[in-house]
Amino acid sequence: MLRIRIALAQMNPTVGDLEGNCDSVVAFARSANEAGAHMAVFPEMVVTGYSVEDLALRNDFVSASITATHRLAARLAAEGLGEMPSVVGFLSRRAGGRPGPGAPAGAPQNSLAVLHRGAVRLVAAKHHLPNYGVFDEFRYFVPGDALPVLRLHGADIAFAICEDLWQDGGPVSAVREAGAGMLITLNGSPYERHKDDVRLELCGRRARETGAAVGYVNMTGGQDELVFEGDSLIVDANGELLARAPQFEEALLVTDVELPEGPPVAELPGTAAGRPVVRHVIPTAPPARYEAGAPVLTPRPDPVDDTGEVYQALVTGVRDHVRKNGFSSVLVDVSGGVDSALTAAIAADAVGAENVHALLTPGETTTLEETADAEDAVKRGGLVRRLQPVAALADAFRTEIDAAPGALPALEDRVRGGIAAAIAAEEGHLMLATADKSQLAMGLCGHYGDPNGAFAPLKDCWASLVRELARWRNAAAARDGEPAPVPEGCIDRPPRRSAPDGPPLPEQRLLDALLESYIGTDKGVRALIADGFPPDLVRRVVRLVDRAEHIRRAYPPGPKITRRNLGRDRRLPITSRWS
Amino acid sequence: MLRIRIALAQMNPTVGDLEGNCDSVVAFARSANEAGAHMAVFPEMVVTGYSVEDLALRNDFVSASITATHRLAARLAAEGLGEMPSVVGFLSRRAGGRPGPGAPAGAPQNSLAVLHRGAVRLVAAKHHLPNYGVFDEFRYFVPGDALPVLRLHGADIAFAICEDLWQDGGPVSAVREAGAGMLITLNGSPYERHKDDVRLELCGRRARETGAAVGYVNMTGGQDELVFEGDSLIVDANGELLARAPQFEEALLVTDVELPEGPPVAELPGTAAGRPVVRHVIPTAPPARYEAGAPVLTPRPDPVDDTGEVYQALVTGVRDHVRKNGFSSVLVDVSGGVDSALTAAIAADAVGAENVHALLTPGETTTLEETADAEDAVKRGGLVRRLQPVAALADAFRTEIDAAPGALPALEDRVRGGIAAAIAAEEGHLMLATADKSQLAMGLCGHYGDPNGAFAPLKDCWASLVRELARWRNAAAARDGEPAPVPEGCIDRPPRRSAPDGPPLPEQRLLDALLESYIGTDKGVRALIADGFPPDLVRRVVRLVDRAEHIRRAYPPGPKITRRNLGRDRRLPITSRWS
Repeated sequence: MLRIRIALAQMNPTVGDLEGNCDSVVAFARSANEAGAHMAVFPEMVVTGYSVEDLALRNDFVSASITATHRLAARLAAEGLGEMPSVVGFLSRRAGGRPGPGAPAGAPQNSLAVLHRGAVRLVAAKHHLPNYGVFDEFRYFVPGDALPVLRLHGADIAFAICEDLWQDGGPVSAVREAGAGMLITLNGSPYERHKDDVRLELCGRRARETGAAVGYVNMTGGQDELVFEGDSLIVDANGELLARAPQFEEALLVTDVELPEGPPVAELPGTAAGRPVVRHVIPTAPPARYEAGAPVLTPRPDPVDDTGEVYQALVTGVRDHVRKNGFSSVLVDVSGGVDSALTAAIAADAVGAENVHALLTPGETTTLEETADAEDAVKRGGLVRRLQPVAALADAFRTEIDAAPGALPALEDRVRGGIAAAIAAEEGHLMLATADKSQLAMGLCGHYGDPNGAFAPLKDCWASLVRELARWRNAAAARDGEPAPVPEGCIDRPPRRSAPDGPPLPEQRLLDALLESYIGTDKGVRALIADGFPPDLVRRVVRLVDRAEHIRRAYPPGPKITRRNLGRDRRLPITSRWS
Repeated sequence: MLRIRIALAQMNPTVGDLEGNCDSVVAFARSANEAGAHMAVFPEMVVTGYSVEDLALRNDFVSASITATHRLAARLAAEGLGEMPSVVGFLSRRAGGRPGPGAPAGAPQNSLAVLHRGAVRLVAAKHHLPNYGVFDEFRYFVPGDALPVLRLHGADIAFAICEDLWQDGGPVSAVREAGAGMLITLNGSPYERHKDDVRLELCGRRARETGAAVGYVNMTGGQDELVFEGDSLIVDANGELLARAPQFEEALLVTDVELPEGPPVAELPGTAAGRPVVRHVIPTAPPARYEAGAPVLTPRPDPVDDTGEVYQALVTGVRDHVRKNGFSSVLVDVSGGVDSALTAAIAADAVGAENVHALLTPGETTTLEETADAEDAVKRGGLVRRLQPVAALADAFRTEIDAAPGALPALEDRVRGGIAAAIAAEEGHLMLATADKSQLAMGLCGHYGDPNGAFAPLKDCWASLVRELARWRNAAAARDGEPAPVPEGCIDRPPRRSAPDGPPLPEQRLLDALLESYIGTDKGVRALIADGFPPDLVRRVVRLVDRAEHIRRAYPPGPKITRRNLGRDRRLPITSRWS
């Protein structure tokens, strides 16, 4: 057996920032080299960032990715890192791709490249293109068919990209036949609650199926509605976990694995499971300097509990949306409700309390408790307080359009949204929208005015989860001896906004369970009633959800934390009579 | 040769209204029967409407479609229409579809059914699933593989669905080998300028390739951002046009075609071009009543010119978005600019001038010309006039947030949007947004406030096309001796809103040519400069476009009229450093 030291570089690239991403690759490669690694492996599409969406169809963007990858190879060598192969994900194109109706323009491919001694030595593309949930990869890419195998100082290591690991009968099935002792996949795998458990189980299963160790390197950070959690890991050929990186932060996971020595390359097959095997050989004897130094293993830190994990995902999403879009401060309308108090707390954890401008907008329809809790949230959190009462303006509006007095709460919300947007534009803050998933599902946030904002941290959190997150964050503060950021009073106060018409909506947990069944599992009215939900409630809630599609379409993105968010995961017509 | 009378039913279904759609199918079948047709053929997914998007993944929706289709067969027979086969598009599912990661839940298929004598006699599914432009059919459907052929009173007629006609090597290539004398495709083919020319050319080419007559039945009407133009047609085996239906309206196209008599079915192949052929035989002798009556041919009316065709598409889109979403009136903020004047004219043509509420919102920054043109547009169009000055409210806003005087125009726009949204909500109008494609491309409409609205008629029209459409509409009014709806003064006035920072933007035609090259053809900065656009302008405009993605995401849908709209056709990350 050979002892090979693998470095998995859990990196946070930015879409479109090819230069910045390559700078980070070089920095990680340097650390890997200093740690004595024989190879560094980077996430899917690390050169371009992920997901680039329709940028993949632009000729100049694909060319820039290919050029950047070749330059990266040269630069790694120029900086003394060329002896250690670096494996990166990048956007490439298939040679001779024939244009046709519906074929992605320019035949772009989601590819990986082995960089060694100043050049690109091996290129192969992702086989399985996910086209479900948030993914549209049939739109952007053409599939690859070859299995790349690197002979690294005597051991054979195969590579694949993300979805290829999840599909039965994919390139994974060819690993054993190709004679590889290890499989490493490059991933851009979005966060979902509990996905880390599935991921570890899958890697273990694939290891046992293929008889090969499995390495999994994932990106981290936020990109629009996606959060990448990291959680890179390595299991041995028995599926036992060797090492695991933290969630939601950049990390270099350096691990020694024992791999079988491969036979002479000439004896190895040129195809495996019907696919061509493409190989590159790195000289057998490892360079002397790799033999020095003790193994540097980064064990996974104590995992946080499930609620804390969600909280971290939200903070990551907000931080990267603000930072990567060139902002440094945010504006939140703090109403005295739990949604806006939690949004402000997340924002403070993401960009610093001194960069969170909390707008207090008391109006004629605001209660004393709400006003007190809003002030309290600002004080506890150390946020920047901005007072902008809305009663006078809302009343001027009401008089102007001669609206009924009952329209006042909605008008106040419109004025709030208008003031917040104007201040954000005037001063250059990124504005956060505060509605939670339950509100947005039923269309109980306004259509214009209060849904204003560029990012919506709680968009994928049911109202009952919002309360759980608020309690979790307060408890964490208590453990650290800091003030709890979310006023206790607002956590248990029922939501101010109720459904139009009809009796009050039931208790939030029942409502959220129904919403989750309808939205999360696509159950129809009859099945929901069969599950025991009250028939009248089912019909009413389904109708509310179905009639609010136009509101969701205009709503800003927010971090996905569930299997089905109210964004790319769920695409429904606005115009529909189905209910 | 046999003379067969074919009825193509160019119908306007509504997504999710299975009952209403089946009612319409029966009504069209009755007309076809009265016209002596041997068969009636309906558009793609006519039972469910199209596109149903993620509704296809819901078990209850697929079941409802299948049930509705079987009931429809029975109902046609019960109403005395069972002897004439009706071929309808519907949502079905593949038996034994195996669930797996990424496979559409429930294995839904975009299918067609031959209904005859009270039952579903033949079912086959679309082979080629478009997954580009506005289409996401790999997400929703699993492909079919069989070629359905109907022996109709001695002639063999094959069927396929939409994209199958466009793809070389699709089921079309099996038509000749299967021995069919005619191919009919069921379509839900969205309108794009000049697509009618391409469509006729394609049908002619396929006829010559297959040696079979080709029938093309398309739906009509609007569905969210899509408009279906109809333009159903039949060409003979030489590719010569026999009959063509009008654009943008429902129609029954009844045409006699001469088809070869097929050999005994037993002598025909069970596979063609590697695909299974599924057949159903309708007794050879046509029922006596079909022999009566002269052929009823609906020739295509004089085609309108290109600009008029676009105008009709916009009217169709607005009319159906209003009607199918349960509204009967609209609200438009008429500013005195050409965009809002044309939007109001389109709305009046779509839903009647008496249902168009024109909001006049003069402010401190409105010019006298604008105010005059706004009043004029309301008067010429016979719209419902609503005066709501905004200066006082905008000033109150400005004082409240202590904004610089330079912020006033933007604040007035916010107040306009707020007032319009409040009135629309209060009185139940559907609100139209007025920005054109050039504004929206460069982010020169506000982010909050004036982009308010549920539908945006001019979203896919460059500013220079807006002027052309206004002139076209005025000329049409002059021909009919009616007042020209768009005040001439506003047609040539340059757009009020210019780009922030930097020198004034150039002449609109140059700007639109650049925008079309960048957005329509995905050319990069270097290629645009090589095409002769001024380098500084290219860099500035590309940057403006790239930085405005968040604004486009929140903008309401509008009718697609170009190959690439600013909606589903163009999907880019918000967070991107690429420019």
